[in-house]
Amino acid sequence: MTPDNLQQANTILQRINELASISESPGVITRTFGTEAFIKGRTLVAHWMQEAGLQTHIDNIGNVRGRLLSQSPDAKTLVIASHIDTVINAGKFDGPLGVLLGISLLEQLIQQRTNLPFHIELIAFCDEEGCRFHTTYLGSKVVAGHFDKDLFSQRDATGFTLQEVIQHMGGDPAVLAQDAIPAKNWLGYFEVHIEQGPVLFEKDIPVGIVTAIAGQKRIAITFHGEAGHAGTVPMDMRHDALCAAAEFILEAERFAASHLQQVVATVGTLQITHAASNVIPGEVQITLDLRSANQQVLNSCHSHLERLAFAICQQRRVNMQWQPVQESNPVTCNAQLNYLLAQAVQQSGYEVIKLVSGAGHDGVAISPVAPVAMLFVRCFEGISHNPLENVELKDLAAAVKVSAAFIHSLIQKHNRG
Amino acid sequence: MTPDNLQQANTILQRINELASISESPGVITRTFGTEAFIKGRTLVAHWMQEAGLQTHIDNIGNVRGRLLSQSPDAKTLVIASHIDTVINAGKFDGPLGVLLGISLLEQLIQQRTNLPFHIELIAFCDEEGCRFHTTYLGSKVVAGHFDKDLFSQRDATGFTLQEVIQHMGGDPAVLAQDAIPAKNWLGYFEVHIEQGPVLFEKDIPVGIVTAIAGQKRIAITFHGEAGHAGTVPMDMRHDALCAAAEFILEAERFAASHLQQVVATVGTLQITHAASNVIPGEVQITLDLRSANQQVLNSCHSHLERLAFAICQQRRVNMQWQPVQESNPVTCNAQLNYLLAQAVQQSGYEVIKLVSGAGHDGVAISPVAPVAMLFVRCFEGISHNPLENVELKDLAAAVKVSAAFIHSLIQKHNRG
Repeated sequence: MTPDNLQQANTILQRINELASISESPGVITRTFGTEAFIKGRTLVAHWMQEAGLQTHIDNIGNVRGRLLSQSPDAKTLVIASHIDTVINAGKFDGPLGVLLGISLLEQLIQQRTNLPFHIELIAFCDEEGCRFHTTYLGSKVVAGHFDKDLFSQRDATGFTLQEVIQHMGGDPAVLAQDAIPAKNWLGYFEVHIEQGPVLFEKDIPVGIVTAIAGQKRIAITFHGEAGHAGTVPMDMRHDALCAAAEFILEAERFAASHLQQVVATVGTLQITHAASNVIPGEVQITLDLRSANQQVLNSCHSHLERLAFAICQQRRVNMQWQPVQESNPVTCNAQLNYLLAQAVQQSGYEVIKLVSGAGHDGVAISPVAPVAMLFVRCFEGISHNPLENVELKDLAAAVKVSAAFIHSLIQKHNRG
Repeated sequence: MTPDNLQQANTILQRINELASISESPGVITRTFGTEAFIKGRTLVAHWMQEAGLQTHIDNIGNVRGRLLSQSPDAKTLVIASHIDTVINAGKFDGPLGVLLGISLLEQLIQQRTNLPFHIELIAFCDEEGCRFHTTYLGSKVVAGHFDKDLFSQRDATGFTLQEVIQHMGGDPAVLAQDAIPAKNWLGYFEVHIEQGPVLFEKDIPVGIVTAIAGQKRIAITFHGEAGHAGTVPMDMRHDALCAAAEFILEAERFAASHLQQVVATVGTLQITHAASNVIPGEVQITLDLRSANQQVLNSCHSHLERLAFAICQQRRVNMQWQPVQESNPVTCNAQLNYLLAQAVQQSGYEVIKLVSGAGHDGVAISPVAPVAMLFVRCFEGISHNPLENVELKDLAAAVKVSAAFIHSLIQKHNRG
């Protein structure tokens, strides 16, 4: 990388730190949608966009949007974006890195007086994490033009509706649709984000190309066995709901592990009803989280594990309920954009690593209207959603270098085309 | 059985119902140590003992004790006993059955003007379940002469100390030791109790002979893995604490099942620290309850499972803490008493079934000072500590018949000897 890249990375890091200092609670980073801390953070980001020379405004849902216009007639729009809301007790890179790196990229294009064959719009989305209203992608759904108005009446923990919070921030819920970028106007969507997983860290590579954002199924499973006295019921007369659950947990792990790179399966919660150390568990509830970049694999994994669970329970004479509670389809990143991105990675001197995003991102909401590409940046040990979240300065510089090369090759391609 | 046995059983059942109507809470059966309901129930039992012709008094800890004296010089004492305290929302047979059956037995001996070669003392113990002070066998420990005075300062949920509750009931904590039956005076201990397990119900036999009361070890186990995002950490890079726990739970089940009749193993509680459906469990705590009638088996099972747990964790690169938190040794019932009991069962026309008590009983506290024998009575589906607890009238009559035959053979033996 060049000294320029390092200088840019340094500025980005300073801004990440400055934004991280704006929080709902002192000593931690928490900036959920629509809070005073969020508004203060948003104002700062808008200021930086303006300072960089972007036509900046805040839309009705609460996104900060800065435009850099092409002179060409019929120019389409490339959106570069990430989010500036956070989880509770967050790390400082998840979201802001992509936004502040975007400002740096566009600032450079302006300084270089680059002739743009397409408009570029930089967006700081207002709600990717969805912590406040338990609904994700509020900002990107508006930009993609498929915001669901039923969400207006959703309430946060203190009783405010989403509609009230939008109004409190100065937005007009009635005209959200006007903030969408019409489907025909999109050139593409590009997001730089920390990996939030350990693959790049383990492979010792600073950046990676996202091939897909995994689809997800969440299933609530209840095992109904028979409670009993831990001392008096012989082993061969038991119908232990926890043993049934344990057998299923291991089978799910084994199945996913045998389909490595294709699917991940996680049992994250487990509750025993009326648990006591001297009582055989009679009822156990678990949640199963399945993710895959391949819809077919996701579906077949789902059916296979459901059949497996039934078989385990039948053998143990335990009853079972299998209830799907949430579902999202995989998003495949655009092959043409990824081809240019891979070239940019190679030109920058890094090995090309392709990986699937197991976590969801705003690209999921954008994917119905635009080709999507994402660049992942290595984070320390894959730790995220945690104050220990960390990105090295040189990795940030690598991401700047690759992103700039990517945008330039996209510009060249469209200037030629 | 004779019409007399059925008549006796009917009276016992009526009294069980009458005692069950005395409760701390309306509509359920709850009579824990020292409450107004307990005192009221105790008064009723003392009244029945007196009516039967026993020399009745209430001792300082709160046991009801009725004596039927031998004329013989140097007579020892046979104690027939069970308990009249209950768990919260109890069944009506657990405890009272043995006490009220005992009154019926002694009433018959009095009516038959039986010449006793030993004293018989019928005791209604005041605290077997230990619900109020989380200490079991308070009453039987006093009678056996090894009550631990440190318990006086133990507090119940409302803040009362055990000492205060004893005084409130009219007892003098300073003279508890005087209520013990000296070790040299014991002939033996006999208790009739519901099985609280499904063995007799499944075998379709009304009564069974207890060969031993299982020893118990309770272990708190913590698995320290690595929390992570359910979507972003590949299966082969996980250190899932719940999967480690699940593997151990299944191994413990398998091990105990392969030592059928020798040991039971139960994981009754499981907690995931900071559980969420989209987070790989980083820390899991479970409790393991091990029981066996054989001390050696119990010890070797304990060491084997500890080694197994470490091996599982080592392979998964998960850390583990194994902390024994409670322990009691097995009690072997007396072979000579059991020989007479088996004869009584056969003479009464029933198949002799021998079984281990997985639950603890007052005989555990008595065992250091006297030979112990127990007769189990079948209960519906093995259900206990539950309002659904039930014993059929004919099974109660069978228990009366067998117990009477047992006491008579013991009397004959000692008259001969």
